[in-house]
Amino acid sequence: MAETITTDMVIHDVVTKYPATVKVFHGHGLPCTACAVGARESVAGGARTHRFPPEKLELLIKDLNAAANGEVTSITPKKAPVGRGVPLTMANGAPDRKIKQVIAIMSGKGGVGKSLVTGLLAVSLRRQGQQVGILDGDITGPSIARMFGTKGQPTKSANGGIEPLRSKGGIKVVSMNMFLEKESDPVVWRGPMISSAIKQFYSDVDWGNLDYLLVDLPPGTSDAPMTVMQALPLDGVVIVSSPQMLATMIVMKCINMVQQLKGSIVGVVENMSYFETPKGERYEIFGSSNGAELVGMTGAPLLGTLPIDSALTTLCDAGRVEEYYAEHYEELAANFTNTLRIKR
Amino acid sequence: MAETITTDMVIHDVVTKYPATVKVFHGHGLPCTACAVGARESVAGGARTHRFPPEKLELLIKDLNAAANGEVTSITPKKAPVGRGVPLTMANGAPDRKIKQVIAIMSGKGGVGKSLVTGLLAVSLRRQGQQVGILDGDITGPSIARMFGTKGQPTKSANGGIEPLRSKGGIKVVSMNMFLEKESDPVVWRGPMISSAIKQFYSDVDWGNLDYLLVDLPPGTSDAPMTVMQALPLDGVVIVSSPQMLATMIVMKCINMVQQLKGSIVGVVENMSYFETPKGERYEIFGSSNGAELVGMTGAPLLGTLPIDSALTTLCDAGRVEEYYAEHYEELAANFTNTLRIKR
Repeated sequence: MAETITTDMVIHDVVTKYPATVKVFHGHGLPCTACAVGARESVAGGARTHRFPPEKLELLIKDLNAAANGEVTSITPKKAPVGRGVPLTMANGAPDRKIKQVIAIMSGKGGVGKSLVTGLLAVSLRRQGQQVGILDGDITGPSIARMFGTKGQPTKSANGGIEPLRSKGGIKVVSMNMFLEKESDPVVWRGPMISSAIKQFYSDVDWGNLDYLLVDLPPGTSDAPMTVMQALPLDGVVIVSSPQMLATMIVMKCINMVQQLKGSIVGVVENMSYFETPKGERYEIFGSSNGAELVGMTGAPLLGTLPIDSALTTLCDAGRVEEYYAEHYEELAANFTNTLRIKR
Repeated sequence: MAETITTDMVIHDVVTKYPATVKVFHGHGLPCTACAVGARESVAGGARTHRFPPEKLELLIKDLNAAANGEVTSITPKKAPVGRGVPLTMANGAPDRKIKQVIAIMSGKGGVGKSLVTGLLAVSLRRQGQQVGILDGDITGPSIARMFGTKGQPTKSANGGIEPLRSKGGIKVVSMNMFLEKESDPVVWRGPMISSAIKQFYSDVDWGNLDYLLVDLPPGTSDAPMTVMQALPLDGVVIVSSPQMLATMIVMKCINMVQQLKGSIVGVVENMSYFETPKGERYEIFGSSNGAELVGMTGAPLLGTLPIDSALTTLCDAGRVEEYYAEHYEELAANFTNTLRIKR
């Protein structure tokens, strides 16, 4: 067999020329192909980031060449591990799984843009023609309903469950604010009530058939994320961070929590990476990127690097997030679906 | 009596010329003198913001003139209401109160800069020569220790309590990270554990004599803020917000919670108001200011309007927040102490 792929080739070039190698990378535990950092690295570089010993790199190269030549490889693609939780019964519990993927968006740190990433990921997935739902797991600080401009209270569904509201673009949304008289009413609840609300949002809502249910979580590593990880049939977690080291330290706590609870990290998103003035000058307001560091620490791909965009703030406040379009977010959604597809 | 003060005079000018009128404004429930918005308004304007009926404005003008002329006024300065909580016994419970003021910094929304405001308020108060302590109430996402560069574990104090760590500038600090082996270790705890940690940080730590104990709270309106409001002898709350409407809506939840629990709002701080490039161009990245709106809603003064400053991010990440100096923060601290002084 002729060795066409070598350690110094750039991962992005390898997978573009030989699409069959994508599964080999992932089978060897290298998610670099869907990673904004990794894909620009060499094969050896990617292996180094993920701490491959020389013999493992050698086997990877052998398998890559085998795949490129249509031969048999030593690895078989792994299935994504699922959360260790006991799945709740769905309101309309059919024997087949009506929600294909349940993905939580977590951070540990507040204000890094979890809700924004959740909202815009949903918008991009919907544009791809997917059936998408958002469960706003931030019970005391919900922002999803406002962002999508969904108004009114949820009604009873034909099956006796709760019918979620629908955004203009057809995304199903359930958020605590829909159950309050005024959106500024506080929800002064201790942990058990928070947990029970999240469970009800999952089991009592008639979500119908969905390709993705995105669960937006509050910061911290207390009741809400614990409940979602332990009581929902979670397929994976997307971690949102910001360049600030302080944020990264707190985000690391969340990553360690997911690993302790045997959850699966789909990927990492770096938000607020920079601000670009209308004249095109870039400022790294919150410090320089930690994307590569996060990839190294989680072993999961960097799904996107997102700038601060004032236009987006305005649209979110006006409940018109679905009118926003930015290539960064379309890329994020593409990396997200690709990573999940390969994991399955 | 000659009427020297009229409704169209600017509040700032009135109090500068007649310092005795400050107590009259506050006695009438107008904190405008310490407010970045209110002080620039006319007396009538301030009264309008706080929804004064004409007869109340008339009485205010009468009292202001009386005070300016050294005469007796109809109002007596009120004492600040204290939290309705049952105060815990201090580790070294002397009959007199060793901590003069316990102030919580809250927000409802994550990532608006509570910890930053807490840290820098402490730094400015310390520069004024005050004895200051910081209780980091964000158990799952603590950032205070990192910001001040305090390292190591707290030791036993002479009284058998916990001796807080001290920053270089002499601020006493207690934060969850000091009790973990690694700062990235997650604290995967449900509500009751969180509450109990906060109570212990208050009662088991040997704070000694303090002018101010600042309590930095996590976002949300669940266990941590409930515990601080109900179980600590809280003198007041500082609310931190950002210009984004979405944030303001969630911050309103927190304001409503404080009002429901009969807490006292000392003032409001607007953070991340704008970003200034090195060339001096200003960008309102997160939308235009909501300061005036917050003042109207809380009836409390706007203690400061703070810009985004990259230099500050870098110093915080390096544990050197005490080296930072900015007039905005000195002003904030001055407004804070003035407001508290008048309330007493």
